[in-house]
Amino acid sequence: MSTVAIVYFSGLNHTHLMAQAIGEGAKQVANTQVELLRITGEQITNGRWQDDAIVAKLNAADAIVFGSPTYMGGVAAQFKAFLDNTDAWFEQKWKDKLAAGFTHSSSLSGDKQSTLIYLTTFAAQMSMIWVNVGDMPSDYFGKEDGVNRLGSFLGVMGQSKLDMSGKSAEIDPGDRLTAVKFGQRIAEAARRWN
Amino acid sequence: MSTVAIVYFSGLNHTHLMAQAIGEGAKQVANTQVELLRITGEQITNGRWQDDAIVAKLNAADAIVFGSPTYMGGVAAQFKAFLDNTDAWFEQKWKDKLAAGFTHSSSLSGDKQSTLIYLTTFAAQMSMIWVNVGDMPSDYFGKEDGVNRLGSFLGVMGQSKLDMSGKSAEIDPGDRLTAVKFGQRIAEAARRWN
Amino acid sequence: MSTVAIVYFSGLNHTHLMAQAIGEGAKQVANTQVELLRITGEQITNGRWQDDAIVAKLNAADAIVFGSPTYMGGVAAQFKAFLDNTDAWFEQKWKDKLAAGFTHSSSLSGDKQSTLIYLTTFAAQMSMIWVNVGDMPSDYFGKEDGVNRLGSFLGVMGQSKLDMSGKSAEIDPGDRLTAVKFGQRIAEAARRWN
Amino acid sequence: MSTVAIVYFSGLNHTHLMAQAIGEGAKQVANTQVELLRITGEQITNGRWQDDAIVAKLNAADAIVFGSPTYMGGVAAQFKAFLDNTDAWFEQKWKDKLAAGFTHSSSLSGDKQSTLIYLTTFAAQMSMIWVNVGDMPSDYFGKEDGVNRLGSFLGVMGQSKLDMSGKSAEIDPGDRLTAVKFGQRIAEAARRWN
Repeated sequence: MSTVAIVYFSGLNHTHLMAQAIGEGAKQVANTQVELLRITGEQITNGRWQDDAIVAKLNAADAIVFGSPTYMGGVAAQFKAFLDNTDAWFEQKWKDKLAAGFTHSSSLSGDKQSTLIYLTTFAAQMSMIWVNVGDMPSDYFGKEDGVNRLGSFLGVMGQSKLDMSGKSAEIDPGDRLTAVKFGQRIAEAARRWN
Repeated sequence: MSTVAIVYFSGLNHTHLMAQAIGEGAKQVANTQVELLRITGEQITNGRWQDDAIVAKLNAADAIVFGSPTYMGGVAAQFKAFLDNTDAWFEQKWKDKLAAGFTHSSSLSGDKQSTLIYLTTFAAQMSMIWVNVGDMPSDYFGKEDGVNRLGSFLGVMGQSKLDMSGKSAEIDPGDRLTAVKFGQRIAEAARRWN
Repeated sequence: MSTVAIVYFSGLNHTHLMAQAIGEGAKQVANTQVELLRITGEQITNGRWQDDAIVAKLNAADAIVFGSPTYMGGVAAQFKAFLDNTDAWFEQKWKDKLAAGFTHSSSLSGDKQSTLIYLTTFAAQMSMIWVNVGDMPSDYFGKEDGVNRLGSFLGVMGQSKLDMSGKSAEIDPGDRLTAVKFGQRIAEAARRWN
Repeated sequence: MSTVAIVYFSGLNHTHLMAQAIGEGAKQVANTQVELLRITGEQITNGRWQDDAIVAKLNAADAIVFGSPTYMGGVAAQFKAFLDNTDAWFEQKWKDKLAAGFTHSSSLSGDKQSTLIYLTTFAAQMSMIWVNVGDMPSDYFGKEDGVNRLGSFLGVMGQSKLDMSGKSAEIDPGDRLTAVKFGQRIAEAARRWN
């Protein structure tokens, strides 16, 4: 049995839907347990994040997938507050766990790569092993399923038109499929690595 | 009179068309002279680039716009060979000139931001002043002219479907318009700065 | 008269000392007013930052210098909460203002460049003009004053040995001098640009 | 038996010495074969790199370690020419191989992180699995062996004072030890992954 934890912040639910799709993919791999762990602003006091239950689950996971919307060219402040909780860093508690990342924003490029670069940098500080996307853009090969339609490699990107209502968040079917396949890939990598 | 130099490498001519559009925009600003300077593989010997005429024109420019296709997540090797010619660096010959950047690739995101981040890093080593795009994605405001349709801010991005023929390169009309406006912006900044 | 605002977060006071040094340098340029604006965790509620007085001063400044310690390879979450306050973004209120950045951490390299890359990306989203460091490492030329001793170009870096006490923060004299000269450079650029 | 290939460019031999140290560390792991593959300017014609023997060895390796000096804030143009040889990309020939990176420059920070960020981006395009450094700066814990003295996590950094002679290149003993340990780590990861 291996455990894939997906820890994320989501403002308008798009990143939440991507997290769910990654979890769905990971569950398709035999003997994989998935933990969906959502960071919220309420877990932050005076700019500092704390939630012992989430930390315990992350410490127990074999792979951790990090997800955040791209806000102003980087991870959301709320997610950064979670990442800045450095107990796991000083003791290198996540050393040699697998890591991966995903992000979502409202424009096609929109500095989402900046978010993914940052997440790889964070994972490096934790001495984790980074799993990249693994799927080429399918339209290079004449397919129309939308897999990796944005052309992202460090992690999965999702994009949806700007919509501040937050009521009926939807994600692109191609982005969703990319996320499902990414979840499978991470779960398979966790099985191979363990 | 201020001079805007646009120095670029182009494999399949898309980056060349973007360079021309930036030049067209810059020329629309009164008292602006534009230099289009194309880097080629033939200027490289044993991995090192040299072309004294191009160097002289760059040394004389008020603003330098750097452009390269994104190859494997970064500037083309041929363009890097040009940038590695460090005569201008040791003596900081381009200090306080304006700088800006653009890139093109075949996917919507496709690690083009990585190229732009690198170009800002290069310009920083030269102690130049970096001029960002300046146009929000126009579809945020209900416009359909395609200005900044990809959502790029450090520099202008262009994207065209993968096409290895190179015979009839075309660029997206929105990307072209973004480039023209970027050229104007740089030329206006050069006038203000001088 | 031009105004240079220095907006920063500081956990253990090192970044605060660097902010002061930049301010000291900026004040040496005639007709320059300096605003030191410190972000604190107390300004953050449920992960969101708000402080109308600071926003008003930033909206009125000619140049904004952004500073944060490097925490886990990026800006501190508290500073990101400030940057995520997007009122200024949608309306592009800081468009064409000058921008610059600085950071501090406990190791010589320590992913501080990642923080500076992020700050340039943020400034790009705001359509600001980025002012780079402008000083080569002085030891290249046999000087021992410590100017740019770390070799940073996108912004100024400071480094001090890890010390969690926070009681008697000190910064390296070379880093301090680099910061003073950087403040001068930014104030001179603001005068030239206006 | 697993094979660790170390492919690198070196101008003044510092990067070469780091490559050797990584190879030395990898060989300390039982059943590990090491290939040291040096890219040279002579392998480049009209800006394009080709060397079928090196490509064959890389295609056969279990892990590939990428190394380049940091020139002008990025990988050397000669090394980029090697990376731009995209035969392995279209067919994703290196998919699921392990990858890692290292760099060297003359200043303590000096934009070396930019080089490492780029190398992770390249490896992502190849769908490789990225192995990070795995050693905290030892001086955090009062040790004086110089392990990770620069505080780098995405890959190993080496730093030596600027010296254009190239005659008697030496690397810092701490950087050398960091590289040896990094080689061990990569070889152990290759064994675990296979």
